[in-house]
Amino acid sequence: MASATLTVLEACEAAKRASRVLAGADTARKDGALERLAELLGERASAILDANAADLAGERAAGLTDALRDRLTLTEARIAAIADGVRAIIALPDPVGEQLERRTLANGLDLRKLRVPLGVVAVIYEARPNVTVDCAALCLKSGNAIVLRGSSYAERSNAVLGGLVREAVAEAGLPEDAVALLGGDRAELEQLATAEGLVDLVIPRGGEGLKQALKAVATVPVMFAAAGNCHVYVDAAADLEMARRIAFDAKVDRPGVCNSAETLLVSSAVAEQFLPRVLADLSAAGVELVGDDRTRQLAGDVIVGEATEADWDTEYLGLKMTVGVVESLAAAVEHVNDHGTGHSEAIVTGSEAAAAEFTDGVDAAAVYVNASTRFTDGFEFGLGAEIGNSTQKLHARGPIGLRELTTTKYVVHGDGQVRG
Amino acid sequence: MASATLTVLEACEAAKRASRVLAGADTARKDGALERLAELLGERASAILDANAADLAGERAAGLTDALRDRLTLTEARIAAIADGVRAIIALPDPVGEQLERRTLANGLDLRKLRVPLGVVAVIYEARPNVTVDCAALCLKSGNAIVLRGSSYAERSNAVLGGLVREAVAEAGLPEDAVALLGGDRAELEQLATAEGLVDLVIPRGGEGLKQALKAVATVPVMFAAAGNCHVYVDAAADLEMARRIAFDAKVDRPGVCNSAETLLVSSAVAEQFLPRVLADLSAAGVELVGDDRTRQLAGDVIVGEATEADWDTEYLGLKMTVGVVESLAAAVEHVNDHGTGHSEAIVTGSEAAAAEFTDGVDAAAVYVNASTRFTDGFEFGLGAEIGNSTQKLHARGPIGLRELTTTKYVVHGDGQVRG
Repeated sequence: MASATLTVLEACEAAKRASRVLAGADTARKDGALERLAELLGERASAILDANAADLAGERAAGLTDALRDRLTLTEARIAAIADGVRAIIALPDPVGEQLERRTLANGLDLRKLRVPLGVVAVIYEARPNVTVDCAALCLKSGNAIVLRGSSYAERSNAVLGGLVREAVAEAGLPEDAVALLGGDRAELEQLATAEGLVDLVIPRGGEGLKQALKAVATVPVMFAAAGNCHVYVDAAADLEMARRIAFDAKVDRPGVCNSAETLLVSSAVAEQFLPRVLADLSAAGVELVGDDRTRQLAGDVIVGEATEADWDTEYLGLKMTVGVVESLAAAVEHVNDHGTGHSEAIVTGSEAAAAEFTDGVDAAAVYVNASTRFTDGFEFGLGAEIGNSTQKLHARGPIGLRELTTTKYVVHGDGQVRG
Repeated sequence: MASATLTVLEACEAAKRASRVLAGADTARKDGALERLAELLGERASAILDANAADLAGERAAGLTDALRDRLTLTEARIAAIADGVRAIIALPDPVGEQLERRTLANGLDLRKLRVPLGVVAVIYEARPNVTVDCAALCLKSGNAIVLRGSSYAERSNAVLGGLVREAVAEAGLPEDAVALLGGDRAELEQLATAEGLVDLVIPRGGEGLKQALKAVATVPVMFAAAGNCHVYVDAAADLEMARRIAFDAKVDRPGVCNSAETLLVSSAVAEQFLPRVLADLSAAGVELVGDDRTRQLAGDVIVGEATEADWDTEYLGLKMTVGVVESLAAAVEHVNDHGTGHSEAIVTGSEAAAAEFTDGVDAAAVYVNASTRFTDGFEFGLGAEIGNSTQKLHARGPIGLRELTTTKYVVHGDGQVRG
C-alpha cells in the first residue's frame, strides 16, 4: 500500500462496505461463519501456537513481566477455550431485527423501533490474543464489521487469528473485509479515532493512558471499557463474617481485573471489631495495606502503611488495598461518589434501609448489596459474553454484550401521510 | 464571582450536588415543580414579555433576519403554549425507577436493571427562548439537573424564564441549583464541554459550526441534535400522485427544520412522467430548484439550476431543493447513505419488496415508506416532547425524549455471594 495513511482509512472503508452486507445477513449465515471459525481454531492450533511462540521469543517480549507474558501466552487448552467462547456466542440470540416498540399513531402510521447493527466497530486492546477472536465473534454475531488494533507484542498471534476469522467469514459467503487487523503507532490510532463516517464506535480496552489519549483526539464515538476503582463498604448493620468473605473475595479473587475492589470502607460503629481480622486475612494473602489513621490504630500486629491522597483514587490492579473508617453511611456514599469510577460498588449490611440508601445514592454501573463486586461481567450477568465493561453513562453502562453493539432504527409505514 | 472560569465550573458543581437530590425526588414532587412552573408562566407573563421586548429592541437584535427575529419573539399566546408544553410533560410517565430487567442468577443473586437519571445535562441552543423552559422541564421530569446555555440574543428573556424555573423548583422543595443559566463566549463553552465528572451529557442544538466546535474540544459525552439532509425517493412502483404530495410536504411544510427534505430522487422509470408536475408545484410554492442534467432536461418550463457537488450535501433549511434521477433503487440507497446525515429518509413505492430493500439498506434514525419525512419528532412519535433529534447511533437515535435522558444501573442483591 502506498502509505500508512492509506492503510488505516482503506481498511475502514472496506470494513464500511462490508458492514452493509453483514447488516443484512441472516442469523444462520452469521452463525455458520462462527461455527467454521470454531472449527478452524482446532484445525490450525499448531499454526496459532507457532505464531504465539514467535511472539513470545521476539525481542519486544523480552522485557515483559511474568503477568503480561502469561496474558500473551496461548496453549492448546486456551485455544480450545477460545473456540468454546465462539460456540457460546453462536448459542446467544441474534439481537439484530429485534422489535423494541410497535404502535399505530393516530394518523395511521405504523411505527416500529428495530434493533440494527452499529456498522463498523473498532476495538483497541492489549496483549491478550484471545480478545481478537472474542471481539470479532461478538461483532459478527451482532452484524457489525470490526477493525481490530491489538498490541504489537501479539502481532504474529493476532495475524494468524485474524486471518482465521476472515477465512471463516469468506467461507460462509460473507465479505472478509468485515474483519480488519491493524498494527501501527499512535498516529494510526489517531486516524482510526477520527475516521468519521467510516467508524461508528471505538472501544478502547486498556488503562487510563489510552483513555486520555483517545479523549484528546477522538471525533468518532468512543465507549470506554475503562478502569474500576471499586469499593466495599461494611455498614454498621453488617454480618461481619459475611463482610470479611466479601471484602476478601473482592480484593483477592482476581486482583488484576477491573471489578476487583481497591478500597475497603468500614463504619466506625464496627471498625474496632471488624478490622483486625480482615486486615490479618488480607495481609496473609499477600495484600499490601495502606489506611487512614483510625484504621492503622486498629490494625494490631498487621502492618498498614499511611494512605496518601492518591491512594484513594488509584486502581492498583494488584495485591494492594486502601482501608478507611467512615462515620456514617452518608459519608460512605459521598466517598464512593467522589473517588469511585462508577464501575462496581458494594455494601454489606443487614439493614434494608441502609441497602436502599446505598443503592439509590451511589452513582455506578453496578451496585451490590451483600455480594462481591467481582460479579460485574457479561457472562455472570447472563449476557453470554462481553467486549468489556462500560463505566460511562451513555448507550451502555456495565457489561458490553451483543445488544450494546447495536443501535435502533425507526421504520415507519404509511399510506400517503403528510404533515402539512 | 471572581472570574469567568469559576462561573461555569461553580455552576456545574452546584448542579452536580443538586442532581443527587433530584435523582432521589419522587414523581409527585417533580410534577409539583412543573405544575408551579406552568402557573408562574401565566402569572409572570408581562415580566417575560418586557424582557423579550428588551431583547428584540437590543443592539444585537438589530441585524437579525425576519426569520430569526420571529424565533426570538414571544407573545402571550406563545407563552401559554410553553405552559401547555410543561403540562404535557407532567402527564408523561416518569422514566426514573423503571425496571428494565429482573432475573435471579444461578448463584441466587437478584439482578435488576433500573432506569436512573444521567445527572447533569447541559443544553446549548439558539435564539428560541421557549427552549429554555422545554429543556428544563424535560430534564426535571427525568430527574436531571440542567445547565442551559442560550443565545446572547435572548439573554433577558432567558434570564426571566430561567429564574421562573428556579423559583418553581425551590417552591417544590427541590434545590434551585438544579437549573443553571450560563451566558458567555466560546471559552466558556469549552469549559462546559470539558467539565468531566460534573457534566454527564452535552446536547448542542444548532448547526454544523457548533457541532464541529464541540467535536474539537469536548471531553464530556456529547449527543448531537444535529442537521438533517433528508431525501425523498420516488420509486419506479410509486403512486405518483401520493409521491407528489409527500415530496411537496417534505420540502414545503416547514422548510426551516431538520426533518424537512433537501433532495428529491426519482427513478428513471418514472422521471419523465413524474418530474414536470412536481417541479411546477415546488416552483409555484417558491422553492428554488437545482438538479442534475436529466432532471433539467425533463423540467419543461420550470427553471432548474445546475446542481453543484456541494448541493447534494447541503441542508438548505429553506425553500431550495436538489433534484436527481437515479437508475435503480440500489443507486438511490447508495446515494442516501453517501450524502444523507442519518436523520429521516423516505421512499414512495407500491412494492413491498422495494420498501423492504430501502428500509433495510438505508442507515438512518427514521426510514419512511409512503409518508413524509416531517413526522420525525418526539410529539408525533408519541414520546410527548423532545429535546432534539439525534442523528448519532449511540444511546439515542431519533427524538430525544425523557427516556433518552436516562441511563441504567444494575442493582444486585445477594446473601453473601463471592466469586472465588
